[in-house]
Amino acid sequence: MGEIKTITKKIKKFRDERDWKQFHNHKDMALSLVLEATEVLEHFQWKSLEEVNKHGILCKSDIAEELADVAIYLFELADNLEINLSSAIEKKLIKNANKYPVEKAKGTHSKYNYL
Amino acid sequence: MGEIKTITKKIKKFRDERDWKQFHNHKDMALSLVLEATEVLEHFQWKSLEEVNKHGILCKSDIAEELADVAIYLFELADNLEINLSSAIEKKLIKNANKYPVEKAKGTHSKYNYL
Amino acid sequence: MGEIKTITKKIKKFRDERDWKQFHNHKDMALSLVLEATEVLEHFQWKSLEEVNKHGILCKSDIAEELADVAIYLFELADNLEINLSSAIEKKLIKNANKYPVEKAKGTHSKYNYL
Amino acid sequence: MGEIKTITKKIKKFRDERDWKQFHNHKDMALSLVLEATEVLEHFQWKSLEEVNKHGILCKSDIAEELADVAIYLFELADNLEINLSSAIEKKLIKNANKYPVEKAKGTHSKYNYL
Repeated sequence: MGEIKTITKKIKKFRDERDWKQFHNHKDMALSLVLEATEVLEHFQWKSLEEVNKHGILCKSDIAEELADVAIYLFELADNLEINLSSAIEKKLIKNANKYPVEKAKGTHSKYNYL
Repeated sequence: MGEIKTITKKIKKFRDERDWKQFHNHKDMALSLVLEATEVLEHFQWKSLEEVNKHGILCKSDIAEELADVAIYLFELADNLEINLSSAIEKKLIKNANKYPVEKAKGTHSKYNYL
Repeated sequence: MGEIKTITKKIKKFRDERDWKQFHNHKDMALSLVLEATEVLEHFQWKSLEEVNKHGILCKSDIAEELADVAIYLFELADNLEINLSSAIEKKLIKNANKYPVEKAKGTHSKYNYL
Repeated sequence: MGEIKTITKKIKKFRDERDWKQFHNHKDMALSLVLEATEVLEHFQWKSLEEVNKHGILCKSDIAEELADVAIYLFELADNLEINLSSAIEKKLIKNANKYPVEKAKGTHSKYNYL
C-alpha cells in the first residue's frame, strides 16, 4: 500500500472510532479544508518577506501542525470521494505542463490565459 | 523514497524548469493553498447535502483536479519549510487523539474545549 | 457624508493613531479580509441547517463581532483603493440583474453560465 | 434610513424577486462571503508590493466588483441574522481600541496577546 493510502487508513480509523463519519459530508469537509488552509496563511499575515522567512524557521513546528491539518482533511476528502489523490496529482502536473509550456512560462507569474 | 517525497520531487522539477522558485515565498504559497481550497469548496456552494452527494459523483474528475491543486501547493510548501509532512501528520493524529478522547468525543462535533 | 464614509473615517483614525498604514498594503488587507470571513464561516462548521439557525440566534453577538471585522477591512480596503463602495455595490446589483434575469434565475441556484 | 440599510433593502429586493431566500441559509451565506473575499485576494497572488500597487490602479474597476460582491453578502447576512452592522462596527472599534492601546500597539503588527 502507498504512503498516502496508509496515512488515510489511520485518519479514517481515528474518525470512525469517534463515529464522526456522520458529520463528514463533502461540503463540511471542503469547508474545513479551507479553514485549516487559512490557519497556515494566518502565520504570514502582516509580515514582510524577510519576516516570513524568519517566521518559517522559528515557528516550523507550529506551521507543521497546520499543514498536517490541511493534509488530514485533504486525504480523507479524496478518499470519501473515491479519488486516488496520487494519480490525480500526476494527471494535474501533466495538464499544467501543457497550460504552462516552459518556453512561455519561464520566469513569469502570469496566468496561462495571459501567456 | 516515500510516495509523498517522490511526488514532491516531480512538483519541484516542474517549478524549477519554469524558474518559479523566485515567486514561491511561504506567504504566496500559503495564499495559493487557500485559493485552491476555496475552489474545492465552490463545488458545493448553495447545494443541499443530497445535491452535494450527487455532485461528488457527477463532477468527480473536476473535483479531483482541485484536490490535486491543493496537494501540489501543500507538498511543495511543506518541502520549502523543510517539514516532513508524513511525520507531521502522524504526530498531529496522536495530538488529536489526546484532544479528542474517544469516550468524550464519540458522536459529537463539539470543539475539544467544549467537550 | 454617507454612513459608510463616516464609519471609514473612524476606521482610518484608529489605524493612523497606531501608525499601521505601513502594514496595510492591498495584499495584506485582502488576506486579512479572507481570514476574517473564515472566522464567520467557522461558526457554522459541522452544523446541520437546524443547528445553524439556533447558533445564529444563540451566538448573535459573537457573530456580529466577526461580521464587523470583515466590514472594517472591507471599508478600509475600498478606501485605500479609492473605490466608492456604495456606488460599486449599486453598479454590481445592476450587472447581476442582467446576468440573472428573473424569468431564468427564479428559484434556481445555478450559476449564470448554466441558466 | 441609513445608507447600509438602504443598500441592504435593494439587495433583498434583488434576492426576493428571484426567490433565492430558500438557498440563503447562514452557512451558505458565510461560505459565499469567504469565496468572494478570496476573489479579491486572487488579484494580488504572486505579486510583489510594487506590482500590487500598480495592479490596484490598473484593475480598480475589476477589484471594485469583487469588493461589491463581498459587501452584498456581508450586508445581507448581517440583516438575516438581525445584526445592525453599523453599530456592530462601532462596538468592535471600541473593543479593538482596548485590545490595542496606542502606546503599546503603535508601529507594530504584533497580535494583542503578544503586545
